[in-house]
Order: sequence, then structure tokens, then C-alpha cells
Amino acid sequence: MRLISIIPDFHPKDDAVLLARAEALKPELIYTPYPAPQACSLNGEALPPEEMEHTPLSKGDVLLLDYGRHLVGRLTLTLDCAGSHQDAPAFLQLDLAEVTGELEENPEDYNGWLSCSWIQRERVHVDQLPAQLPLERRYAFRYVRLTVLDTSPKYQLLVKRAAAVAESSADWNALEKHTYKDPMLQRIAEASLNTLADCTQLVLEDGPKRDRRLWLGDLALQALAHYTSFKSMKLIRRCLYLFAGSRFPDGRMGANVFTEPQVEVDDTFLADYALMFPIALRDYVKQTGDAETLRELLAPALEQVDLIADGLDGDGLVTAESAQSSFIDWSDGLNRAAALQGVLICACEACAELCLQAQDGERSKRYTALAERLRGAARRAWWSEEAGCFLIGGQAAIHSQVWLTLADAMPQGRAGQAMKKALETPGAPEMQTPYMHHYYLMALMRAGQWQEAEDHLRAYWGSMIENGADTFWECWNPADPAGSPYGGRIVNSYCHAWSCTPVYVLTLLEKHREEEEGGSL
Amino acid sequence: MRLISIIPDFHPKDDAVLLARAEALKPELIYTPYPAPQACSLNGEALPPEEMEHTPLSKGDVLLLDYGRHLVGRLTLTLDCAGSHQDAPAFLQLDLAEVTGELEENPEDYNGWLSCSWIQRERVHVDQLPAQLPLERRYAFRYVRLTVLDTSPKYQLLVKRAAAVAESSADWNALEKHTYKDPMLQRIAEASLNTLADCTQLVLEDGPKRDRRLWLGDLALQALAHYTSFKSMKLIRRCLYLFAGSRFPDGRMGANVFTEPQVEVDDTFLADYALMFPIALRDYVKQTGDAETLRELLAPALEQVDLIADGLDGDGLVTAESAQSSFIDWSDGLNRAAALQGVLICACEACAELCLQAQDGERSKRYTALAERLRGAARRAWWSEEAGCFLIGGQAAIHSQVWLTLADAMPQGRAGQAMKKALETPGAPEMQTPYMHHYYLMALMRAGQWQEAEDHLRAYWGSMIENGADTFWECWNPADPAGSPYGGRIVNSYCHAWSCTPVYVLTLLEKHREEEEGGSL
Repeated sequence: MRLISIIPDFHPKDDAVLLARAEALKPELIYTPYPAPQACSLNGEALPPEEMEHTPLSKGDVLLLDYGRHLVGRLTLTLDCAGSHQDAPAFLQLDLAEVTGELEENPEDYNGWLSCSWIQRERVHVDQLPAQLPLERRYAFRYVRLTVLDTSPKYQLLVKRAAAVAESSADWNALEKHTYKDPMLQRIAEASLNTLADCTQLVLEDGPKRDRRLWLGDLALQALAHYTSFKSMKLIRRCLYLFAGSRFPDGRMGANVFTEPQVEVDDTFLADYALMFPIALRDYVKQTGDAETLRELLAPALEQVDLIADGLDGDGLVTAESAQSSFIDWSDGLNRAAALQGVLICACEACAELCLQAQDGERSKRYTALAERLRGAARRAWWSEEAGCFLIGGQAAIHSQVWLTLADAMPQGRAGQAMKKALETPGAPEMQTPYMHHYYLMALMRAGQWQEAEDHLRAYWGSMIENGADTFWECWNPADPAGSPYGGRIVNSYCHAWSCTPVYVLTLLEKHREEEEGGSL
Repeated sequence: MRLISIIPDFHPKDDAVLLARAEALKPELIYTPYPAPQACSLNGEALPPEEMEHTPLSKGDVLLLDYGRHLVGRLTLTLDCAGSHQDAPAFLQLDLAEVTGELEENPEDYNGWLSCSWIQRERVHVDQLPAQLPLERRYAFRYVRLTVLDTSPKYQLLVKRAAAVAESSADWNALEKHTYKDPMLQRIAEASLNTLADCTQLVLEDGPKRDRRLWLGDLALQALAHYTSFKSMKLIRRCLYLFAGSRFPDGRMGANVFTEPQVEVDDTFLADYALMFPIALRDYVKQTGDAETLRELLAPALEQVDLIADGLDGDGLVTAESAQSSFIDWSDGLNRAAALQGVLICACEACAELCLQAQDGERSKRYTALAERLRGAARRAWWSEEAGCFLIGGQAAIHSQVWLTLADAMPQGRAGQAMKKALETPGAPEMQTPYMHHYYLMALMRAGQWQEAEDHLRAYWGSMIENGADTFWECWNPADPAGSPYGGRIVNSYCHAWSCTPVYVLTLLEKHREEEEGGSL
């Protein structure tokens, strides 16, 4: 599945008032210096970081720096030379990587459908040493590999300092520290917080390595994680205004919004992402009680549901066209109709809540009724009593079961079994992303399968930890560790917003544990 | 022959007074804008330069810009995008080249003994379009090849402008225009002036592409060319002070001097280059009558000769060690002793003239006597009546004949034949550089072979013109157009000081023609 939408002569419909509000809500970045790497190696041999500045480097030498944690920010090298006077430029290659796996790939070999410009490799000539070399761009990295492409036979390079400054608008001081007794859950919670913090910039970015911008599907999950952690309420509000402020000419929200050089919605529409807007607004209003935002963004929120509901077919089902323009998960061959139907139902319920909050009981009821109609349609069209799960075009996809569980569209008491059935059906589409795994967890809890949810959280996110994650990854299939939807893991994002939800899920599990058993995780 | 000298713990002897004078003589650079290329092609097809800004470029597109002449300076690209909103960085490769031959080489394949850092290839990520992209470094180029390594499927790159600003301290307004009737001589003169101007920077550089610094052998020739053209007398004086101001601990001058980040002589000694100092000082004083410079630099000049003369062997010959530490030409296997003996004699004569100018007749006579002694020694040791030329270790090298001609060490009337003999001897070392060819021209004229000199100038420098030169090259052997002393022509310099002398030689030829025949070239 390639996600490339190009609309010629695309002219977004902008709302200057909403965009001005978004601009006014832009946060300050908080800068954290990391003056030196935590660990270092030279040509594969450990090198104490304090010896780095005295270690002359010659052509071919490879210095690997490890900052000990994932950072988003800038790097400044302080360089000098040893030996004779520098008689030729120094020529360096810098590979910045979130995980060591990226360093095992050759960027020249990447030939997938994403731009290879995302690969964090720079080649730099330094005409004159000593030099302070502040790399201009922002990177997402834990590791920096410096390869000396050349000095000259007459002089060697000295890396006197390699200082990083991390940037994020998440305020760690705002965080209420919570400790889990279970060490793995504790590590999962920490990686979840790091992921969220590193994606929390001037907008809530999907991934600070790539695409470095605001996507609606990610936003909805980041916001949930924020409510139980950093609570960047202003920033969440800003992001909601950005989506409402720049839209398709017909009022639809784009899947993502650019903010530089000016705010502009991308010409990519994903139906399920647009439907996340009322859901995210509902969550935000519930958390904050922010009546002004409710008042200003209610109409755009309802519009997202209305535009899709207007296009339902005679049976009350989303059209194939809508299904094709939805994301749900990176699963090739997935029939997305049932999952999208589920998302639409959830969005209807969110609209109903929002209308109620806005004192519009009549309208609220209409959304509730629409949700109910959609549930009936889904069951009539796709429920297979024989299979014990929803079948769409013969497909027993977990995605369909999850979203129709979250939509309360499952026949009473059948959700757990239906999901199990889908997962066990050979050849059925598998979940590919933490984004989908998150909704699976939510569906397990909705189905009352709290232990299964905890087990799956531990198994899936825990296996990333066991594979070296200190932030959670965009794509992860434990059966295919080097897999990528983009034709090469070197462009995968290893700190990705939609994977940051464990801190939220753990709160739900903890609360349930306390209610049910009186214990804590 | 690899020229790599490394002296551990090298501590130059600096003279603060002389260096302060050099600093005070630093020229102002003159900037000349070249707002657009003269010609342009896209993927090999001609593209009118004015259409460039409207031509969207996608991954793999190659834009070739031709500025119509060799430039030394900076390049600023003005970039924008077409299509959808820029959703990934633009990733560009820029190859800047003095000649198209450089563009035919793959930089990754260069594996010679010079630093590959000299190759003018940059890779740049542009995170945000539109952008003004001023390349920070100075380049030597006529051609700029821009390869779009990637944009994204959603947008294309626009190169709105590609503006160059050339820099040089040579003042074209100071030039007395001279036109040659012969079109090839006219073209040679123009390329010679361009070469000189583009090497005339804050010092007289050897090559603005590489090594971008002051070498003594080059300086002596650049100065001669300047006296008949731009007359950058202050700059020549500055360069003389730089060599005198930072020397080897024992007083020897280095082959080249760095000026950044501070003045420091390179730890490379070349005996013939050091001996060029008194010669260059003699020429400068003769041109300017500058008594202050004579007074301040006389001692260091004499010292260069004295230090080598002190090491002569019992027969009055330069030692093998001195010969090995001299350059003369890029000729593998050349026995350099006789040529160095010739350079030493010329340097003695220069010292004699300088002493005379400084009213030290006694001392002057001693240098004249030393020169005479050296001539006798050379003839006794190396003249072969049978061969009709100087033979050193059996070698009938043209280099030996040339320098001993210039030193007036040839038996009377034999120079022309000796040079001819050397050139015709199979297996004898050949001349590899315009540097050596220059001295060959000088020797021809010294031998009274004016027509041969003009013919050779036309044949050798003219063949560079015919091969596309608009400035003259560091290395040129018409029989081996892609040859390089560095293991790959991609690091050759194609605008090189030691090749700039035709404008000086033409003046000599012209003067001779006027005196002899009353005509002009």
C-alpha cells in the first residue's frame, strides 16, 4: 500500500481566525544540553568518551557516539587537527540514527517509495580547522556515526567535542512520576513517555525523524497519552485548530497539516483520520471543559462525520470509495470497509457527546441514532454467525473485529471470541503497526479482557524494548524485525507518535486493577 | 613521485615584524556578480537559461549550468517547489567543475594519494522550500551540475536562480589591453590572464581549486606574469614577506605557506622552490625598485642559497639529498641533480644582483664566483661530448638541459642541440607540467631559438585551448590527456598558477620580434 495523494491545483480553504488562534498557541521549545556522548567507540573498539578529544582520526576511521537516549535536536562538533598543518579540507560523513539497525543499512541501497531525503546522512567539508561545526538541521537520533572520508596524509582530525542540544515542548517537570512494580512495565512506560516527549514539538509530530509533522490519527493518540502525562493542553488545542483552520475546499480535514513555510493542509485525505477529529475534540473537551474550543470547533467536527455519512450506501454502509481512502493500518490487501464503519460509529458517538456538551440535545440524539443505524447495517452486512466474527469479502480481519468492538457493534458478548478467531484465521490480514495494536488493546479492554490486554501490551511493546527500543517504533512486527512499509527500514521512524500510548493504556489497566483487585501493576 | 613531507613536532621560526608587514599588505577582494549561467542543459538536452526557473525537476534529473568562463567564488541557489506542498526534504548533489572532464569521473572511484576532500561535490538537504541556499565554501568552477537525488513523488524542485559571485584581487582595470593578430596567440593570452586573475586572491594561490595556497615555485612565475599584466605589486610583496616571515627552524623557506587560521610555513621543503626566493625577490626589486623590501628580505634570500651551497660536495655539486628534496617537475625517475644545480646557479646570479643593488659589491662578487664554480662543476661532472648533452646517471633528461641552459652552464652554442637531443632520446624523462614547459620556453629563448619557443608555446598551451581550456591546467601531456600525477584527473587543478606564464612569454617574444623584425605577433 503506497500512500501518495496528489491533487493538481489544490487550493485549501483556510480560516484566518482559527489559524490565528493556532499561531497564538504555539509553544516555547525547552532546550536540554547533552554536552557529550555517554559512550563511544572507534572502529568498533570501545573508547572512553573523555579520550575522544585526544584521539587523532585518519581516513576511514569510524567514530560511533551513543548519547544514551533518543534525542530530537541539534548537534555541534568542535573539530581540530593533529599532525602537520591542515593542507586539505576535512571530509566527514555523519550518520545520525535512532537505532543501530539504521546504521547497518546502506542509504545508497534504499529504493522504496518514500523520499531517500529522510535518511539522516550528511557529508561535510571543513575547509579550516579548528572549527566549530554546528549542523544546521534538526535530527532524531541516539547514535552519531562519524566516518572520516578523508583528511590528508599530513594531518589527522580531532573531535574535541560533540555536543547535542535536545528540543521538545514537553515539560518533564509537569509530569507526576509514576513507578510500576513490574520492571518491564516500568520500561515500557518510560519509553512511552520518551516517545511522546520527543514527538512534542511546535506541533505534535508523528515522528521527529520523518515526517516531522502533524497527522490526525497520531494526534488523537498523542493527546490521550498527554492527558495522563505532560498535559500539553495548549499544544493539543493548537493542533485541533490547525486541522480546522486549513481544510479541503469541501470542508473535509486532511490527514495532515504542514506548518512551514505557512500552514497548509496536505492534499491527502484519509477518511478514518478525518473521523478522528470529533473523537479527539471530544477527548479534549472532556479533559479540559474548554467551552470556547468546543464552540469554535464543533461545526468542523460534526462536518467530518456528516460528509462521510452523506455518502453511505442504501444499506447504511460506508462506500468502497471511502474504505479505499482510509488508512486503518499498513496491511496490504485489507478490506477496510468494516473497520471504517467502526470508526464512523465511534465518531458519531463523539459527535453526540459534543452536541450534548454544547447543549444541543436534539442534534446529539440524531448522532446517537445514526450510530445505531450504522451498527445494525454492519451486523446485517458482515456478521457471520458461522465464523463467529465479522467477515468482509470473506476476510476475517482483526482490524474489522477491533473497530466494530470499539463501536459496540458486536453481537453481545462475542467480541473477545471474534478477535481471537480473526487472529487465528490463516491468511487473514495481520496487524502491522503499533497504531493498530493500540486499538486492539482498547478493544480487548472494551471486551473485558483486561489480562489479555496487559499481556499483549507486555508482549508487543515489550518486544520492542527487548529489541533495543528506548522510544517506540512506527512499524513493528516481531516476526519480521527488519520489515518496513516503505521498502527499507532505514526510512522507518523509530520514535513514532502513534506508538506512544502505553502510558495511557497502563493508566487504564492500573485503574481497572485497583477497582477490581485493589492491587497495582 | 609522491610529495608528502611530514615532520613531527615541527615548530616554524616566525618573524613577527615580517608577518605584520605581510598582514598589512593583504589586498581587498573584488567581487563580480554572474547572476545566471550562460548556458544550461537538462538531462543532456539544451535548456534556455531563462526557462530554468519554470522547469520542475524530479528525482534523477540533472541540470548542467555553464557560466561561460572559469570562476573562483561562491554560488547561491534560489530554490522553490512545484506540485503539492513539500512533504520531504529536497536532497541535491552539486558537482562544481573547472572542466567537463571532471564531471565524467566518479568521485567515489578516486583512490590516489591526494585527499579526495578536494573534489568539489556537495550533498545538501533542504528541509524547507522556498529557500535561498548560499553554498558556504569557495569553489573554482565554470560548470555546476545539479543532480536531484530526491524530492518526493508529491513535489518537484524549481531552481529559480543560480547566481555566482566571482572573487579575485586582480584588477582588470589595471590591465593594458594588448591584442595579438594571431587568433590562437590571442586566445592563449586571454586564458593566461584568466588563469593569473583567478589565482590572484588574498595570496597568489597555486590553484583556486586545489591547494588554494601560496607555493614558492608558482609565486615566482605568477609574479612575472603580473609584471606584464595586472601588476599586483603589493600582493607580490606580501607573498615574499610571508615566505620570509615563517620558515623552518634552520632558516630554510618552506615550499608553501599557509595563511589560515594563522600564517605557518608548511613542513615541506623543496630545494628548488627555496632557491626561487632570491630569484623572485630579484625580479620584484628590478620591477619596483623597492629598497625597503630589498633591505628587509635580502638576508633571508641569501640564506636560501647559502644553506644549500654549504652542503655542496667536494666536487662542487649539489648532493643527492638536495636533489631528492627538489621538485623540478612531476617526472617519475628523473635524476634531479643537474636541474637543481642549474636552479642554484640562477639563484646565485640573483643573489649577486641583489647584493649589487644593496651596494654590497664584495658579496655580489662572491655569488658570481660561486655561480661560476657551480657551472664548471656541472660541466665536469655531467657534460657528455659524445652525447652532446648533459647526462646524469646516463639520463639525457630535458630538465637538466633546460636548467643548465638557463644557468649559462652549457658549453657555448650547444644549448639548442642539447635540448633537442634530450627530447629525442627514447626513454628519457619527459616534461609533465606547464611549470617545466615554461622553463623550456625560457631556455629556448636563452639559446636564441625564438621561433622554436613561439612554436612550442602555440603547440603546448594551444593544445590545452583546443582541448577546451579557458584557464591553463596544472598537468598537461597532449599524449595523455587524462593523465594525473595524483592518481586521477578529478583532483587535477585546471586553473593553475604555474601555467599562467604565456602572457609573460608572449611579451618577450613580441619584444624580440619588434627588435629583430620590426613586426608584431
